Amino acid sequence: MAEDEGPLRGHTEAQILSVIEHGLSLAGGSSSEVLTGPGDDTAWLRVRSGAVLVTTDAMVLGRDWRDDWSSPRQVGRKCVAQNAADIEAMGGTATGLVVTLVADPATPLAWVRELAIGLGQEAARAGTLIVGGDLSSAGPGVCVISATALGELPDGAVPVLRSGARPGDALAVSGPLGRAAAGLLLLQENRAADDPDLVGYQQSPRPAYGDGRRALEAGASAMLDVSDGLLLDAERIANASGVRIDVRTAALAADVAALTAVGDRATDCVLRGGEEHVLLATFAGKDVPSGWRVIGAVTPGAGVSVDGLDTQGGGWEHFTAQQE
Amino acid sequence: MAEDEGPLRGHTEAQILSVIEHGLSLAGGSSSEVLTGPGDDTAWLRVRSGAVLVTTDAMVLGRDWRDDWSSPRQVGRKCVAQNAADIEAMGGTATGLVVTLVADPATPLAWVRELAIGLGQEAARAGTLIVGGDLSSAGPGVCVISATALGELPDGAVPVLRSGARPGDALAVSGPLGRAAAGLLLLQENRAADDPDLVGYQQSPRPAYGDGRRALEAGASAMLDVSDGLLLDAERIANASGVRIDVRTAALAADVAALTAVGDRATDCVLRGGEEHVLLATFAGKDVPSGWRVIGAVTPGAGVSVDGLDTQGGGWEHFTAQQE
Repeated sequence: MAEDEGPLRGHTEAQILSVIEHGLSLAGGSSSEVLTGPGDDTAWLRVRSGAVLVTTDAMVLGRDWRDDWSSPRQVGRKCVAQNAADIEAMGGTATGLVVTLVADPATPLAWVRELAIGLGQEAARAGTLIVGGDLSSAGPGVCVISATALGELPDGAVPVLRSGARPGDALAVSGPLGRAAAGLLLLQENRAADDPDLVGYQQSPRPAYGDGRRALEAGASAMLDVSDGLLLDAERIANASGVRIDVRTAALAADVAALTAVGDRATDCVLRGGEEHVLLATFAGKDVPSGWRVIGAVTPGAGVSVDGLDTQGGGWEHFTAQQE
Repeated sequence: MAEDEGPLRGHTEAQILSVIEHGLSLAGGSSSEVLTGPGDDTAWLRVRSGAVLVTTDAMVLGRDWRDDWSSPRQVGRKCVAQNAADIEAMGGTATGLVVTLVADPATPLAWVRELAIGLGQEAARAGTLIVGGDLSSAGPGVCVISATALGELPDGAVPVLRSGARPGDALAVSGPLGRAAAGLLLLQENRAADDPDLVGYQQSPRPAYGDGRRALEAGASAMLDVSDGLLLDAERIANASGVRIDVRTAALAADVAALTAVGDRATDCVLRGGEEHVLLATFAGKDVPSGWRVIGAVTPGAGVSVDGLDTQGGGWEHFTAQQE
């Protein structure tokens, strides 16, 4: 049997790892930070700034992706993107990732190879690479991918937390909103052909790496990435900072207009759609960095409002299993 | 409903995270390295030595533990121990961990609380703490815990790799061997009461934190932790270093004698049992550090021998699902 044929079952871990390592390497990602890469008990990464950012995020087959909706390459890209976006959200740059794959032995080896290619491709986009991982088997139908990203800030910088927003600050976002949620609706309704671009954002977010660093350098007072929906993530800044945030829908008109494929649900996608992985930040000055635009304001008080009206954040809950 | 009652289903992530954070905090672990802890997009850890070690390892319900064999506290301790042991195996000290939990919504919240207590307890034993994580739901019967440990070496040190063993070096181990495998046999045979101490090692390995650092300072030439069995892990050093390793059973007589509960399978447990998470290293000198003992020698050639006779490493394979 050629190494790229059949399911994981029956292959040694060395054979599977060899396929994964080859897939990871295809994108040619590199990092001047890697002192010791895969093959030992741990990787060893240079840290120039005296401190390291670390974040972790898991993806679960059937919850975070469906194999009939997403290619393994897209799954790999999404896994890296959502972790690297968390590094961006502190103002940092990813310097390395480790990934664990827990999979049903019936999983095709070719699927794993393509996953590794996607992981490597997105890591290269983020300017880094996969430096280690772990592989384990699981029961029928199970596939869990868990990634941890490390990152660094510029020398002497401190991270942009959620807690620094102050009344008078502008609320700004680094890219369009609602695309991933609209893409999910199209997939759910078997209408992917109606707007393949929106579906593409659901299959793999496309963070503009560097937006976080530019926000830090522009003096952002608070920041996070929009992983669970604009209103819920804005509420997180409001709660952590002890302020009120008002979102202005007039500033979101273009976002809504881009989602005609989902009709009157477009506004809900923009306000409550998760998995965008664009950045949401507050700035004390009126100027926001290149690529950012103002969509609201920070005021005294608590909670989140939309055009001045109180609202509930809402967003994805894993265990109540509904949009609140 | 009180927060500690019932399954995860129906609780918000904030409620579940609050229970986890409380559990993690009970052991009072601390770290002078944590600049920003949980609650933001990433944690931020001080790095004093200019480089960081990073490793990741997943545990899967039904593969790495059974709920009728292990308490959630033991599962949490094992999860941290096996990751921290990988940091030890490079000569380092753990400086922080992140953990993802992917669980069936039917999982009792009390189980998750106890898991968190175990994670926090073992992190405190290792001199560090859990600095972040992620929580996600999964299908019926699924529970996957994936941890990533960060660590550091003493200033100016380089890690002890697998590739540095040289002919003439002594092979040494930092603790007893075979206990976890023997404990697993007793559990499988419903004879846990025959030797609860062995069973305890299976339920949670007990790395002697600091052994790795002492080996580095004593000039260890190669090192790893015994996660997949002495012979297989020795073979990894042999392959990486381009040497032959001879294991001497006379030096393992006490290990075998301690496993009387498993009868004539004791030798196999000692030579091939995984999950010990003691350290295996080679030393150029005749002296080994406190807590270590010599069990063999490095010679020119390739592969692993036992008392001079060629052998196959063997050990656990996740996807071929058998002891080779």
